[in-house]
Amino acid sequence: MNLPEDQKIWVPWMRRSIQLALLAEGRTSPNPLVGAIVLDSSGRLVGEGFHTGAGNPHAEIEALAQAGKESFHGTIVVTLEPCCHQGLTPPCTEAIIKAGLKRVVIGMVDPDPRVSGNGISRLKDSGLEVIDGVLNQECESINREFSFRVRHGRPWGILKWAMSLDGRIGLQNGSSKWITNTIARDSVHQIRAKCDAVIVGGGTVRVDNPLLTSRGKSDFEPLRVVFSRTLDLPKSSKLWDTKNAKTLIAYGPEGDEAFFSDLPNGPDKLRLNSDDPSELLTSLSEKGCNKILWECGPLLATSAIKADCVQELVVFVSPKLLGGKAAMSPLNSFGFESIDSTYKLQHSILERKGEDLCWSLLI
Amino acid sequence: MNLPEDQKIWVPWMRRSIQLALLAEGRTSPNPLVGAIVLDSSGRLVGEGFHTGAGNPHAEIEALAQAGKESFHGTIVVTLEPCCHQGLTPPCTEAIIKAGLKRVVIGMVDPDPRVSGNGISRLKDSGLEVIDGVLNQECESINREFSFRVRHGRPWGILKWAMSLDGRIGLQNGSSKWITNTIARDSVHQIRAKCDAVIVGGGTVRVDNPLLTSRGKSDFEPLRVVFSRTLDLPKSSKLWDTKNAKTLIAYGPEGDEAFFSDLPNGPDKLRLNSDDPSELLTSLSEKGCNKILWECGPLLATSAIKADCVQELVVFVSPKLLGGKAAMSPLNSFGFESIDSTYKLQHSILERKGEDLCWSLLI
Repeated sequence: MNLPEDQKIWVPWMRRSIQLALLAEGRTSPNPLVGAIVLDSSGRLVGEGFHTGAGNPHAEIEALAQAGKESFHGTIVVTLEPCCHQGLTPPCTEAIIKAGLKRVVIGMVDPDPRVSGNGISRLKDSGLEVIDGVLNQECESINREFSFRVRHGRPWGILKWAMSLDGRIGLQNGSSKWITNTIARDSVHQIRAKCDAVIVGGGTVRVDNPLLTSRGKSDFEPLRVVFSRTLDLPKSSKLWDTKNAKTLIAYGPEGDEAFFSDLPNGPDKLRLNSDDPSELLTSLSEKGCNKILWECGPLLATSAIKADCVQELVVFVSPKLLGGKAAMSPLNSFGFESIDSTYKLQHSILERKGEDLCWSLLI
Repeated sequence: MNLPEDQKIWVPWMRRSIQLALLAEGRTSPNPLVGAIVLDSSGRLVGEGFHTGAGNPHAEIEALAQAGKESFHGTIVVTLEPCCHQGLTPPCTEAIIKAGLKRVVIGMVDPDPRVSGNGISRLKDSGLEVIDGVLNQECESINREFSFRVRHGRPWGILKWAMSLDGRIGLQNGSSKWITNTIARDSVHQIRAKCDAVIVGGGTVRVDNPLLTSRGKSDFEPLRVVFSRTLDLPKSSKLWDTKNAKTLIAYGPEGDEAFFSDLPNGPDKLRLNSDDPSELLTSLSEKGCNKILWECGPLLATSAIKADCVQELVVFVSPKLLGGKAAMSPLNSFGFESIDSTYKLQHSILERKGEDLCWSLLI
């Protein structure tokens, strides 16, 4: 990091603010993760706070409340540019000015067009010293999904599959329980716990009858989305029971709505104008999803990749050999004619999960 | 290691003997890797040696020659039980007895039925102290392939493939150049350099026209074996030029020998009684191969696994997406009906090769 020498003193405090922000991982959507600390005029820590969820106080307000009068002539260190607009809560810039702080240290500019530099301007115009870009990459990285949604109007998409060493996600007869071990499957529950929605296609509902929850790894279960072209779905499915987690049935123009007549009341319905996965993701973005997980079969996975609805892949590889030309593969054809034209991914994280591997990559 | 306390002093010397043995890695087949050191009667190192290849002196003889008269009343530390039979060279037990040594420290018993404890008995009967099993696992591991061949009458088989993240070894049109990067391909050349033979099927010769050499990574290029059921092979192939490496064309009863009429003189021919890969491997064992590498397509790879001709898998995974139901997969069907009945492999080594992964496993 190429920070000027006199700004390096803020690095440990920004690191603490990032720690605080991460305490609410998976719970703030559509809002970002934000953490803040307040130092008094002599540099002592007098307040800490983080944003716990949409509609709750912002991190700055929490930290200022804890600091009370001791924030006067002090410094606030916050991972994200303070907001200057009236949202579900009042603008943070005004609270900071009112508290009599003399300095604001910021990690990243808010990509939200309602803020996006306007918060910094408002603070500077009010005579406060503003230092920007401290641990900028780290602050950007904890809000990668939020920033992606704000910039593209679609949630960050993760595609997960579990395969054998010879690249098979199921036998020819559809059997896939279980290719990976319990440690790997536990990781999938953890990934779900940090996503706002999990999407499957009708085929997965028909064949696997999945539950798609985090198995209690999060207080807030992700929205379970069934994306069906035809609404040819089973009458009975674990997903139709919405006691512990919500379900949304999204369907395109060919969907036969007669299916709904026998369905229990639990699941929500969403009629779309097309079978394009990006239309579904735009809707989920409007519902406040920053990050979604595709847990679908090859047909939907391939169309999601083609439609730029996948930014990250998480692939579990189990040391088993399934074999079989007709066995199930992770993806259908993209129509590539040469290796040079295929998708090239960027390595992110490689982990052992017991005997299995888990490889995360960016697309 | 649960060695008695008074035997632990031999561990560093055995480690040195193992180092010496490994200097000839890939060059001693059908013989094992063997290293030896000689200490004089006061425990000073006076000789070192290793076996450099079949027909050359054994490690003990090299070390004793270097020690000369100083070996009298000394100790020899050798990774493998000294031989007691006349092979291409005279028995080592007699040379040890003649040199007037008082002690022999041994890493592992020779699995060769002509030795297999008889060497140790001969030494004990001659009044020498024999200490056995020092660094036994390490000594066994450097001769895993030799021991396997001696015990099973077949070379140790390694199956290698290179695939995309979605488990594809080629596009539908057969294109596979290159799925992996140059670092991964370089590793394949290194693996070949340590194998006695590399086996492909007719399909690979027709489609890829491979060279199958170590690209100079070994002075001794592996024997290149084409295993063809029908002898439907191209008239022209890099493999028919045997200037830098030998080629063997092995074929089953359906092979049309008319193919040979136009073939250059270089390649050797081997007619087999069946298309069973294990018959080929028995022949290669008789030709002195301890370790062979399958670099074949899915058809032959699948039949090699079914016939227990694969003990180790080396799978390269490249972070690319090829897609395609009709794209090429590593393996054909084994006819499994449930995941429980599929092959389960044992993790051995996982390495990054640039952006690619290389996962080695035991079957």
